[in-house]
Amino acid sequence: MSGKKTALVVSAHAADFVWRCGGAIALHQKLGYDVTVACLSFGERGESAKLWKQPGMTLAEVKAARRREAEAAAVVLDVHDIQFLDLGDYPLDFGPDSRDRMVDLIRAVQPAFMMSHSLWDPYNTDHMNTTRFVLDCRMIAQAWGHNPGQKVLGAPQLYLFEPHQTEQMGWKPDVFLDITEVWDKKRAAIECMAGQEHLWDFYTNVAENRGNHFQRNSGGQSGGRASKYAEGFQAVFPRTVDEL
Amino acid sequence: MSGKKTALVVSAHAADFVWRCGGAIALHQKLGYDVTVACLSFGERGESAKLWKQPGMTLAEVKAARRREAEAAAVVLDVHDIQFLDLGDYPLDFGPDSRDRMVDLIRAVQPAFMMSHSLWDPYNTDHMNTTRFVLDCRMIAQAWGHNPGQKVLGAPQLYLFEPHQTEQMGWKPDVFLDITEVWDKKRAAIECMAGQEHLWDFYTNVAENRGNHFQRNSGGQSGGRASKYAEGFQAVFPRTVDEL
Amino acid sequence: MSGKKTALVVSAHAADFVWRCGGAIALHQKLGYDVTVACLSFGERGESAKLWKQPGMTLAEVKAARRREAEAAAVVLDVHDIQFLDLGDYPLDFGPDSRDRMVDLIRAVQPAFMMSHSLWDPYNTDHMNTTRFVLDCRMIAQAWGHNPGQKVLGAPQLYLFEPHQTEQMGWKPDVFLDITEVWDKKRAAIECMAGQEHLWDFYTNVAENRGNHFQRNSGGQSGGRASKYAEGFQAVFPRTVDEL
Amino acid sequence: MSGKKTALVVSAHAADFVWRCGGAIALHQKLGYDVTVACLSFGERGESAKLWKQPGMTLAEVKAARRREAEAAAVVLDVHDIQFLDLGDYPLDFGPDSRDRMVDLIRAVQPAFMMSHSLWDPYNTDHMNTTRFVLDCRMIAQAWGHNPGQKVLGAPQLYLFEPHQTEQMGWKPDVFLDITEVWDKKRAAIECMAGQEHLWDFYTNVAENRGNHFQRNSGGQSGGRASKYAEGFQAVFPRTVDEL
Amino acid sequence: MSGKKTALVVSAHAADFVWRCGGAIALHQKLGYDVTVACLSFGERGESAKLWKQPGMTLAEVKAARRREAEAAAVVLDVHDIQFLDLGDYPLDFGPDSRDRMVDLIRAVQPAFMMSHSLWDPYNTDHMNTTRFVLDCRMIAQAWGHNPGQKVLGAPQLYLFEPHQTEQMGWKPDVFLDITEVWDKKRAAIECMAGQEHLWDFYTNVAENRGNHFQRNSGGQSGGRASKYAEGFQAVFPRTVDEL
Amino acid sequence: MSGKKTALVVSAHAADFVWRCGGAIALHQKLGYDVTVACLSFGERGESAKLWKQPGMTLAEVKAARRREAEAAAVVLDVHDIQFLDLGDYPLDFGPDSRDRMVDLIRAVQPAFMMSHSLWDPYNTDHMNTTRFVLDCRMIAQAWGHNPGQKVLGAPQLYLFEPHQTEQMGWKPDVFLDITEVWDKKRAAIECMAGQEHLWDFYTNVAENRGNHFQRNSGGQSGGRASKYAEGFQAVFPRTVDEL
Repeated sequence: MSGKKTALVVSAHAADFVWRCGGAIALHQKLGYDVTVACLSFGERGESAKLWKQPGMTLAEVKAARRREAEAAAVVLDVHDIQFLDLGDYPLDFGPDSRDRMVDLIRAVQPAFMMSHSLWDPYNTDHMNTTRFVLDCRMIAQAWGHNPGQKVLGAPQLYLFEPHQTEQMGWKPDVFLDITEVWDKKRAAIECMAGQEHLWDFYTNVAENRGNHFQRNSGGQSGGRASKYAEGFQAVFPRTVDEL
Repeated sequence: MSGKKTALVVSAHAADFVWRCGGAIALHQKLGYDVTVACLSFGERGESAKLWKQPGMTLAEVKAARRREAEAAAVVLDVHDIQFLDLGDYPLDFGPDSRDRMVDLIRAVQPAFMMSHSLWDPYNTDHMNTTRFVLDCRMIAQAWGHNPGQKVLGAPQLYLFEPHQTEQMGWKPDVFLDITEVWDKKRAAIECMAGQEHLWDFYTNVAENRGNHFQRNSGGQSGGRASKYAEGFQAVFPRTVDEL
Repeated sequence: MSGKKTALVVSAHAADFVWRCGGAIALHQKLGYDVTVACLSFGERGESAKLWKQPGMTLAEVKAARRREAEAAAVVLDVHDIQFLDLGDYPLDFGPDSRDRMVDLIRAVQPAFMMSHSLWDPYNTDHMNTTRFVLDCRMIAQAWGHNPGQKVLGAPQLYLFEPHQTEQMGWKPDVFLDITEVWDKKRAAIECMAGQEHLWDFYTNVAENRGNHFQRNSGGQSGGRASKYAEGFQAVFPRTVDEL
Repeated sequence: MSGKKTALVVSAHAADFVWRCGGAIALHQKLGYDVTVACLSFGERGESAKLWKQPGMTLAEVKAARRREAEAAAVVLDVHDIQFLDLGDYPLDFGPDSRDRMVDLIRAVQPAFMMSHSLWDPYNTDHMNTTRFVLDCRMIAQAWGHNPGQKVLGAPQLYLFEPHQTEQMGWKPDVFLDITEVWDKKRAAIECMAGQEHLWDFYTNVAENRGNHFQRNSGGQSGGRASKYAEGFQAVFPRTVDEL
Repeated sequence: MSGKKTALVVSAHAADFVWRCGGAIALHQKLGYDVTVACLSFGERGESAKLWKQPGMTLAEVKAARRREAEAAAVVLDVHDIQFLDLGDYPLDFGPDSRDRMVDLIRAVQPAFMMSHSLWDPYNTDHMNTTRFVLDCRMIAQAWGHNPGQKVLGAPQLYLFEPHQTEQMGWKPDVFLDITEVWDKKRAAIECMAGQEHLWDFYTNVAENRGNHFQRNSGGQSGGRASKYAEGFQAVFPRTVDEL
Repeated sequence: MSGKKTALVVSAHAADFVWRCGGAIALHQKLGYDVTVACLSFGERGESAKLWKQPGMTLAEVKAARRREAEAAAVVLDVHDIQFLDLGDYPLDFGPDSRDRMVDLIRAVQPAFMMSHSLWDPYNTDHMNTTRFVLDCRMIAQAWGHNPGQKVLGAPQLYLFEPHQTEQMGWKPDVFLDITEVWDKKRAAIECMAGQEHLWDFYTNVAENRGNHFQRNSGGQSGGRASKYAEGFQAVFPRTVDEL
């Protein structure tokens, strides 16, 4: 393990990390973090409509195509490491083996912070089930009696990244991150998602409007700092500080 | 206006700032802030039972006694400035004059952050009404058309400090502040509250247990930083950051 | 003041106490309590449609008619005392005078428990504003410095009685009271409300179904005690007990 | 009163109706409704920063400028009638006179539905206070004893339009309205707001993304109807229907 | 697949669909829908107390008896198709096989809307687990990669029908459906439930009182449409409309 | 089965019952109840850091040590019976066998009330999963068709005991129990927890401060009964009473 700070993003399907926290990834890489992305599935069954509409398509081809897209996006975002757990999707398999693999990964990475989906998502239960799974695995990784001798996990913050319809998911951001300086990378990563071109502008709009919220919360017309592009996150745990 | 950072605490009754954020005040003074405390009332009618049980007690005497206690506590905490608005208590008077005075104070202080009570308190409606009043005044202080020419307010965070029964008030802390190095000052300020001796140990317990929570959230037995005494706060607005 | 236990019901409009807690009133009178009902208004403007549809109707006549109905219902329910504060309705006047009168009444009654409306009611803001008013007055009545020398109020429970559309009001009962033995009185009181005959069966249905809920929560088919008629209440404050 | 269907939008400040429901207004005008807009204030103090930064600006000039903008936008949106109540802003005056004027207006319009702000807004208490005021006035307008002889109000739905930071306001849309066919009008109305040019693209983004949500909820890639621009609303009251 | 509109009701136990949405079923059949009911279990273990109290009763007999009741009720309600998945109850088996069968059924029916239980039910976890299961299956049925070639599901609304104690379940209706014209069918279906005679009048009361709520929300005494019997539902997803 | 009243505490890990409801246990034993404690696991993996830091430690030794501590505490608290289900921890095994054993235990005990963890706990999902498991088992134990012939369960209250960070768990106490007279036993039981000495004073502070809350809610300075030590609980179900 290096002395570098690390972060771990857990993405239910291959593309989630791009839309939802691509800026945070690129920015923290730039800040010197090693950011690992864990894709639990390729989204091969539920999030690849465009591919399945092609005649003769097979599951293996869809998975390969989705993997290529995700890897390309990871390169653009300077992701330190991307892991594909291939747990299947719609629904994901969260059995004991999946759990052990995820706990191993968490312990290997020893993240300063983690990221995953919103706590509620009636449109896509893979998303909310992933977050429950992440909470389970975070807890196990903290247990001194789990694989004794391994370095146990501390208490990394779990940030919930922005879902597609925030209000329906009961998601409320409590921190906005300025991603202006890495926006080009995020847009380039988004454009790796050939199968979901209808979302490129959607998430550009999101980033612009979160930039407006950044400025609004940093003081607005009374001296607030501008941000052209931002991402929002909801923290699960309280922060511990020496100055407010 | 100096170039120093400033903060403003709005306390419904004279003693509230001591129990609820005395540590934050002393700590931020030490960090170089100028912290102003605004006591909307002396708590002369509703929070001075011990005094009223004395025969022949008058309102003026109660107010004077409570003021002395608050001033003594302010000295111990190194408060930069303490203002008594004398709005009466049980209930407080939140009329236009009160509002104008509070807006003037906010603009004069230009706080980097503000503090006040929880959003709900069925035991003491003065508390929750104060927070609504603070939100009103913060908004007015931001208006370019209110006393044009004055420096308008930016977008300071409003921290809600810990109420007496947190769960009944729907208050949930999202930040813990380590106050260990100024604990002696907070305890000394607490002991200025001669009329509420039954609460001295109560709030010492609170500070110790919040210290435990600080450590729990900073990593616990897996490398978390210890804190012997802490205070918890709930932020009303999202934060804006350049690193998570 | 006698040594009897007392209770105080605060009803925004003249008839509210009948539909919402007529059973609790009659039952506690039978149990030896002195129950006082405070009607803040007659519901003369907003809850007297049937009267206003009569040609030539005047405000004074509506108030008198509503008063007669409420007094008749109070007699049937064995109400110890009924007070009409005549604060007007739609909206109610909650000014300083109203407040002082209500605080005086609370102190005079020294209730073991109080009752009022739900905390939220978008259909009828008089209802929710009444509960905020009651919380204000309860707090003032507890203040040693309000009219020093008077007996201050303890910490009576505030029960929120059942609103007309429970789910829209965010009202959730945490206690069901068996009113079977006084049901005849409640039904008779309900029938005093000549102007709202369309609600007689509605509230009979409510009482029957709450009786079913009573049995369900006391053990249902596995030995639960039956109740033919019940009322539900939501407590604002925690209880203090020596046995669970 | 004509036999046409009507609607009433209550806007705390002059420009609110444009950003938040300009599409709904233009669309319902096209559908044959008469839509009335009530601007409680001009936003002259709190929402006119750009004007106040001009040297020598006066309150009267700001109000006139804001009125011109709002009137121009109303023309573009085909608003049936726009009323300026001039209640002052930051804060608004919600006294008895304001209330009587609003009740009169509601009764005159007899709206099939009403619109106003979110129930919570810690950034701008004028907004949430307006909605409480609207609920009060809606209730009074329903009272047979308020100005007897006037036609009383039925039970129009109250839609809460989209606030600037939805998640912070606890606002959750339960209906999306396709405004594609009137988008040009909304954009043109938005461009009447010379003083807030920084928001033109923000609300264009919102409309585009709500269009995506419209499609997502109408079936998405599995036959959902496309919408290029949409607006979201939260209903306060349940609907009553003969078919789901 | 015919060109008719369809609906799918998912009932944890055999009788649930009768009490909770029997009116909606009969009404939509009358409106030309084909309504399919899926009973996940017969409620043979947990909801058949009366049968089990008979000496010598067997599981097979209980299931047969409950099936007969449910089928009889389905006939009375004109149910298009009733399916018994026989997953066991207390608890239900929600394993992969159950899931595949439910997804197949959803795709076969292609419902315009679906119905199931409330999201929370501490009394009966079968109920809330069913709704989570329905959300899972709805998502899978939408996946282009699940059984490629089959017609994928659109985005049908999921209505949550009324639980036995609405407030304890956190259930809040946002739509009331007038079932007056099919009430006789619902009552007849209810009377097929010989084992739960104690609930016949309970759910008649519910229907009458929801009829009152229907009228209250459609305008009440000011021109609201009367409804003698109604059912309430809570929608999980937002609606998409062209007119409010 | 004796005619004595009984209670059942379900503790995810061996020590939970001591910190969270040791007072309630000792008090109800004194009141004549037979209180059974079910420890689902020993907390051997996740709550035994101090032991695992010893070189050469084995799982069996940790379990034995934790069992000894729990048994010693149970003796001090006069626990009627303590059962170790040994389901493993981090995570617990909630499979069909575990469920059957718990249902058998519930039916054997026939508790007048039950106790378990908060409904939400992002730090420790074992805790919240235990409560869901308890709700499942309580439901099954009520089923007449589960092991027909056995005595079915009534409707015991489920009290949620105090978690470590109440506000983060969304836990809100609605009853405070005075445990002053058995405090010595609770403190002695706490001191049996050699491995978690850092929590001894934490939970003493909690008990003292809940004692203050007890007094506050029983009348405070206006005649409220003092309590030196108390425990708080949140009831899941409504109460059924004959007097408020």
